[in-house]
Amino acid sequence: MTQFIGVQTMAKLVRDIGIETFLTDLAGYIREDFMRWPDFEKMARIASHSRNGVIELMPAADAAHYGFKYVNGHPANTAAGKLTVTGFGVLADVATGYPLLITEMTLLTAMRTAATSAMAAAALARPGARVMALVGTGAQSEFQALAMQAIAGIETVRIFDPDATAMDKFLHNMRGSGLDIYRAQSVRDAVRGADIVTTATAVKGRVAVLTPDMLAPGMHINAIGGDCPGKTELHPDILRLAKVFVEFPEQTRIEGEIQQMAPDFAVTELWQVLAGKAEGRVAPEDITVFDSVGFAIEDFAALRYVRDLVGRDEHVIDLVPDVADPKDLFGPLLGDMPVPRPLPVAELVA
Amino acid sequence: MTQFIGVQTMAKLVRDIGIETFLTDLAGYIREDFMRWPDFEKMARIASHSRNGVIELMPAADAAHYGFKYVNGHPANTAAGKLTVTGFGVLADVATGYPLLITEMTLLTAMRTAATSAMAAAALARPGARVMALVGTGAQSEFQALAMQAIAGIETVRIFDPDATAMDKFLHNMRGSGLDIYRAQSVRDAVRGADIVTTATAVKGRVAVLTPDMLAPGMHINAIGGDCPGKTELHPDILRLAKVFVEFPEQTRIEGEIQQMAPDFAVTELWQVLAGKAEGRVAPEDITVFDSVGFAIEDFAALRYVRDLVGRDEHVIDLVPDVADPKDLFGPLLGDMPVPRPLPVAELVA
Repeated sequence: MTQFIGVQTMAKLVRDIGIETFLTDLAGYIREDFMRWPDFEKMARIASHSRNGVIELMPAADAAHYGFKYVNGHPANTAAGKLTVTGFGVLADVATGYPLLITEMTLLTAMRTAATSAMAAAALARPGARVMALVGTGAQSEFQALAMQAIAGIETVRIFDPDATAMDKFLHNMRGSGLDIYRAQSVRDAVRGADIVTTATAVKGRVAVLTPDMLAPGMHINAIGGDCPGKTELHPDILRLAKVFVEFPEQTRIEGEIQQMAPDFAVTELWQVLAGKAEGRVAPEDITVFDSVGFAIEDFAALRYVRDLVGRDEHVIDLVPDVADPKDLFGPLLGDMPVPRPLPVAELVA
Repeated sequence: MTQFIGVQTMAKLVRDIGIETFLTDLAGYIREDFMRWPDFEKMARIASHSRNGVIELMPAADAAHYGFKYVNGHPANTAAGKLTVTGFGVLADVATGYPLLITEMTLLTAMRTAATSAMAAAALARPGARVMALVGTGAQSEFQALAMQAIAGIETVRIFDPDATAMDKFLHNMRGSGLDIYRAQSVRDAVRGADIVTTATAVKGRVAVLTPDMLAPGMHINAIGGDCPGKTELHPDILRLAKVFVEFPEQTRIEGEIQQMAPDFAVTELWQVLAGKAEGRVAPEDITVFDSVGFAIEDFAALRYVRDLVGRDEHVIDLVPDVADPKDLFGPLLGDMPVPRPLPVAELVA
């Protein structure tokens, strides 16, 4: 039986378990799947570009489950009061091909992105990191702050957004979080003294939101806003002086900050650090960058987590026919329809 | 707002409008989309193969809509009382990227396949065709018979299936159809005297269900059972003596009957016949073959049809958040959650 998790149900799941627990458990699922990276069938996302934006399908599969996410990116949506990015996802059973779960993934993507950021920061930032700069307080920002608090030990968040209303919103939403929040006057002001710098801006084009002169030795940069061709947040010199970590290099070289660099620019795959197969931060003064664009395995892990979170008999929808005889689809579903004309008994030859 | 059409709702839609009308109207949508074939962004289907079967995503888009179907193929499912092929589909708005409709497509695929078969037969069979042979009376068979009756003028159906129970089922399900049904003793017996021969068998491997000696001049063959690599129903000599019509050659050469032929084997694209750009049947004695494997544009048309069939405020689900401020995803959904710890007012720096 297929289950459906809508937006309100997802919000209730998060509220019931508590968002800190949700983000922490979700990060656990993501870590688990990163550590068995070679087990996955990894496919390039399938994009359909149009004048206003893009629609993508992001599949991934292991031996037991097949998952995919539908996600759009339409920057002009906000002018019409709609979200730029929305999504939903499906988890299916590889053995039978039957879909198990359809879930909203607008909220879930925000949470899996934040959980992935925090998981990476916990592995790559200096031990004892407590202060995060958060550049951009849009739709992602609260999730980033709460995940960094729950998973990476952040206690203080220094925020900046050119839109003062967006900062007001962030402060209001985070009033119960226990985070010490400082409202900065500029990006430079926000970044000062931070152990972790998260850039989550809606930049259009190649913008240097961060420049090398803002950085201090030992910082970890969590760059999540630059995530499609032609859209970057970091000055290329930052990439040259830092050690850069990525999800899936084939995708990141097209979509991430490193689209600014040569095709052979050296990067380390995050999963290899988590699995103990590659070095992360070596020295306290290293500058590390997680050039995050979002990868299908993160969605796969999120789908697995949600599937495990709900009882099997809850939220069931009739997406697939339950028929007694696989050769008879017509009878049980349409066989009792009104007879369209007088029953021609004489014509029944048996 | 996104709408959801489950199996029972789909069955009710069909019963309410009548399956003959449903199939005829659906064929109209498919014909409309075939006739504007060049307008579509056509993509190869994305397949994930596993030990038991395959899971595929089949996208297609025009300037207004993006659609895709999820479909599986797991032959061993029937032993467990499950369907070999199930599916669901999504129609989305290209302008905003928002999903408009999620619908079951197990039943809908059976209907779109039948509607496409009948549309092709109406274009390619001899004028005045009244008798169809139906080889294979499995899950597809009733839909094929009713579509051929409603759209291609078929009055008599000559059935054969090695499984006598499957023929019993067909006769029972079609008792109110008005079709004159003859239960044949063999494939050869069924095919004798038919104007249209539909093969819809669950063959495994390269089986010659039909051989050239069974055919008579002027027949139209509707071959729908051979639809994946290694699975065919027609003896290759039939393809040599017939004129072969296909949906999307790039796909059919891999999946259809013509996988048995050289890569440059001559075929005609069905859409070109419908659009008056290529010849169909030229002489009454021509043997025509529709080598059908199922193409994403047929699913796209079916999604459009279902979307038009239901009122916009019916069957609405909350798949996408409806937020007042696109920068605030957290507040309206999670902002009213229980505060996880005492409100640290002193820490709010504004």
